[in-house]
Amino acid sequence: MASKIALLQINPIVGDISGNASLISDFAEQASQSGASLAVTTELAISGYPPRDLLLQSDFVQSCNDVANSLKSVIPILVGTPVPSHGERSLPGNGVVRAGDSVREITRKQLLPTYDVFDEARYFEADERPGIARTIAGLDIGVTICEDAWQHCGATPNDYDSDPIAQIVEWGRQGVVLDATVNLSASPYHANKSGIRLAVARSAAASLNHPFLLANQVGGNDDLLFDGRSVVAWPDGTAVVAPAWVEGVLIADLSNPQNCIWLGEGELTVLNPTDEISDGDEGLLDAIIIGLSDYCRKSGISKIVLGLSGGIDSALAACIASAAVGAANVTGISMPSKHSSQHSIDDARSTAEALGIEFSLQPIMDLHNAADTALAELLANGNPVAGENLQARLRGLVVMAHANANGAMAIATGNKSELGQGYCTLYGDMAGGYAPLGDLYKMEVYALAREFNKRIGLDAVNESTLTKPPSAELAPDQKDEDSLPPYPILDEILRLHIEGGLDATEITSRGHDGEVVRDVLTRLARNEHKRWQMPPAPRVSMRAFGQGWRQPLAARHDWRQ
Amino acid sequence: MASKIALLQINPIVGDISGNASLISDFAEQASQSGASLAVTTELAISGYPPRDLLLQSDFVQSCNDVANSLKSVIPILVGTPVPSHGERSLPGNGVVRAGDSVREITRKQLLPTYDVFDEARYFEADERPGIARTIAGLDIGVTICEDAWQHCGATPNDYDSDPIAQIVEWGRQGVVLDATVNLSASPYHANKSGIRLAVARSAAASLNHPFLLANQVGGNDDLLFDGRSVVAWPDGTAVVAPAWVEGVLIADLSNPQNCIWLGEGELTVLNPTDEISDGDEGLLDAIIIGLSDYCRKSGISKIVLGLSGGIDSALAACIASAAVGAANVTGISMPSKHSSQHSIDDARSTAEALGIEFSLQPIMDLHNAADTALAELLANGNPVAGENLQARLRGLVVMAHANANGAMAIATGNKSELGQGYCTLYGDMAGGYAPLGDLYKMEVYALAREFNKRIGLDAVNESTLTKPPSAELAPDQKDEDSLPPYPILDEILRLHIEGGLDATEITSRGHDGEVVRDVLTRLARNEHKRWQMPPAPRVSMRAFGQGWRQPLAARHDWRQ
Repeated sequence: MASKIALLQINPIVGDISGNASLISDFAEQASQSGASLAVTTELAISGYPPRDLLLQSDFVQSCNDVANSLKSVIPILVGTPVPSHGERSLPGNGVVRAGDSVREITRKQLLPTYDVFDEARYFEADERPGIARTIAGLDIGVTICEDAWQHCGATPNDYDSDPIAQIVEWGRQGVVLDATVNLSASPYHANKSGIRLAVARSAAASLNHPFLLANQVGGNDDLLFDGRSVVAWPDGTAVVAPAWVEGVLIADLSNPQNCIWLGEGELTVLNPTDEISDGDEGLLDAIIIGLSDYCRKSGISKIVLGLSGGIDSALAACIASAAVGAANVTGISMPSKHSSQHSIDDARSTAEALGIEFSLQPIMDLHNAADTALAELLANGNPVAGENLQARLRGLVVMAHANANGAMAIATGNKSELGQGYCTLYGDMAGGYAPLGDLYKMEVYALAREFNKRIGLDAVNESTLTKPPSAELAPDQKDEDSLPPYPILDEILRLHIEGGLDATEITSRGHDGEVVRDVLTRLARNEHKRWQMPPAPRVSMRAFGQGWRQPLAARHDWRQ
Repeated sequence: MASKIALLQINPIVGDISGNASLISDFAEQASQSGASLAVTTELAISGYPPRDLLLQSDFVQSCNDVANSLKSVIPILVGTPVPSHGERSLPGNGVVRAGDSVREITRKQLLPTYDVFDEARYFEADERPGIARTIAGLDIGVTICEDAWQHCGATPNDYDSDPIAQIVEWGRQGVVLDATVNLSASPYHANKSGIRLAVARSAAASLNHPFLLANQVGGNDDLLFDGRSVVAWPDGTAVVAPAWVEGVLIADLSNPQNCIWLGEGELTVLNPTDEISDGDEGLLDAIIIGLSDYCRKSGISKIVLGLSGGIDSALAACIASAAVGAANVTGISMPSKHSSQHSIDDARSTAEALGIEFSLQPIMDLHNAADTALAELLANGNPVAGENLQARLRGLVVMAHANANGAMAIATGNKSELGQGYCTLYGDMAGGYAPLGDLYKMEVYALAREFNKRIGLDAVNESTLTKPPSAELAPDQKDEDSLPPYPILDEILRLHIEGGLDATEITSRGHDGEVVRDVLTRLARNEHKRWQMPPAPRVSMRAFGQGWRQPLAARHDWRQ
């Protein structure tokens, strides 16, 4: 008998317990109709990942567990769900429940990642061993949860005391014969991560000497993105990888990789033992689009409004928005001031027309003059940055008025390079409910704009926008390069520091000018107060600006300046 | 020989390694001159608490450790400092180093709190046993770090696997005789916590059968406040408690509680075995003031600007600001609009005059008219909230222009009740670098205003402000109660939910109207996006709005509505 196990690559909504349960039942039903005899969900599929402080609410965990236990299904399902704590002064578990043919708890996660975007030691108590689901659809299956599989090949930043994959291997030596091991995952996306996940699966399969099946969540939840790409690996390194960024079911034929099926958009990638996979700029563009699109859908937001300056950032943001919620639901506002060039309006209009979004021309000269008059004394004697910020904030005011009047969400269009240098205005261009480009360096913004044009076969971002020197246009003839290093250099310094963890000396030793490096890192530290108030941004890099793990704002002394 | 141990109750700046080291040396020198033969710092005194992601920077931990090891002192010091990891794939320790007479590492923290405001499992690897500093100033001393002592009396939310106090007790049974046990703490303030800390110290001393000495950090670091109140407890329950909110040195005479000395402002409280301590509204006022004052001092901010509406919140915020940075450095701006009453200007001016802060009258009618004209079509057809927010945002614009022109920090004046209900405007009254009242319920704002008046012997918040019905004055004859339940009721519902963890059913069963409760909790959930962008607020309650442990914004479904 060929055993077929279905990996349910779903996009749950955090907190929507009943909706997520329906999603699982529907996918399991489809899987069953296509010949699967067992279904496996992603990690914490019932609550959605990450549930964060919902887990602290008195009956949330109990509700999740109750719903998981009562899931209706024609085939057995291994369901990821929070499971209740063992006592008054202990924490819940990140568990797997068997539902469908019989109901019982199978295991709780052992390795609780508590670094970077993960906070699991805050919410869960660790188990001491992996699980086994016995005689489920005629199989005996090892059960692990996400991080549990990552220690084995050394792919976690720090060592854990135990290695659940090695524990199952040891059970095998002691005579426990398993047909496969599954892994319920919510493994977030960052650029070029799919190769690591594949290595994790291959390493586990090789050690276990049986197939290893990893079901991964897909979609965006606030600033966390999940790319799917569920994977099945065999001991010889053969692997089958599901498509990224779409829901679907991977039906794995344990005895024949070529017989695996994908129910959903796109198709499976079958890899020979030495084949690698990679994700290019196209994956990054998908990541950003799905991040915004899921944020809107899951929060009940249907319309987006943004300022269209004629610059590259707002042009790409408009492209992303139109892809995320549909061009008919996007408004771009051009807000020329006395410092704006004609090309700013023309380029903004060109993007709006190419995308088919609503274009609104809202000059701010009169409003700006009224503000200048009202604040004349103040502006005459104070720091000139007050005037530049005033202009940016009047634009924020107009965009937010549009948003509030029409029930739309404003998006902030800043990128990671600007935000990292504080080259942006709090309550001005930083205003908005979501910052789609907030984790993209400036040069990535250019690359994605070209990629987007290519994808739709139209210059939504026109040549002028792509080639003119970047300018905030908040003062006469202002250019970004008057205040910042050229972006290719700035981006590299920021990336080496933020993602590579290098300090000024180390970055300088890689050939950068010492003074430039020091200035960049000083501005980075000094402008932390702005990032504290930054809207959520989809995380696509190895290390984004912190939200939950930020440095104290007051840490401005001596250190690294 | 009477052994005297000095507890250095210091206010370090996070990241200011050399400054913190000097502070420790200076205090140890004072302690020595007053007869102490050993000094003990607070937890992570060299880095300041909480160092958060500074700990991930490549050489920060090494720098801290180097500086701790090379501290110059005439008496030995037990210094709290990050200490290097044991290997490439392990984390640093939260350690104690012996400096002065001899240099060595004594111990690393065992119990790493990872709940509420704590994230220690993210940054540190746990040790397996407490430390002993032998023949230090002629004594043998047990050494523990903050949370290490809290498990023993059950004062942690969840059980740990080990209990360092019990381990030392067990060593005693095996013949290890210690003269005292010290505890280096950075134990944050919240209202009524001092009693718990005292219970922890008494419980440890009773079990250990020798004196237990806890040195606690004082001062504010962003949203975390530390109240000091270092404590020495003897086995019979006698205890000596240092003053709150001030730096100083507690010189403990182990053999005679009455001989303990405090070097610094205020005085020691000597408690008999059954005496309790409590902290009233006065402690809360001190907490808020020191939070703002330290935030400014540690961030290099000397001037504060705020909108003065004539309402209770901005009046109290002005009082706090004048106490924090001095009246001469505070500007209050009254910005009357067409909806403002004369009493709004009069009451604002009355507060400014009583405090002696600069008062600036900046009517926004003309600016508002210009904005109404520019956005006429939009405002005519859209949701009326757009117009109300416009007015609040124009005020934000004016305050920020003042701030930028004069190098001042704007403060946001909203309270926890409003913020919890979204009864505030993003980029409007929420604009600012710090929100001093952000963790105070509305009724606490009233209480603290009266307390402040009493303290300075002047009605800085006048009777009119204290007694008129709260109004946002964003629309004609608007009252807060048109949109919200009366504040005493709103506050209680919010407190039961946020701090008590009760759900709608449980709150209703305590006598509140079911529909009101549901509305309040629904607004609380729906307005989470605003709190994501809230400036740092000093945490004074058992549970504040999360910054690092927030619920996902998208968690709006079904759950608890």
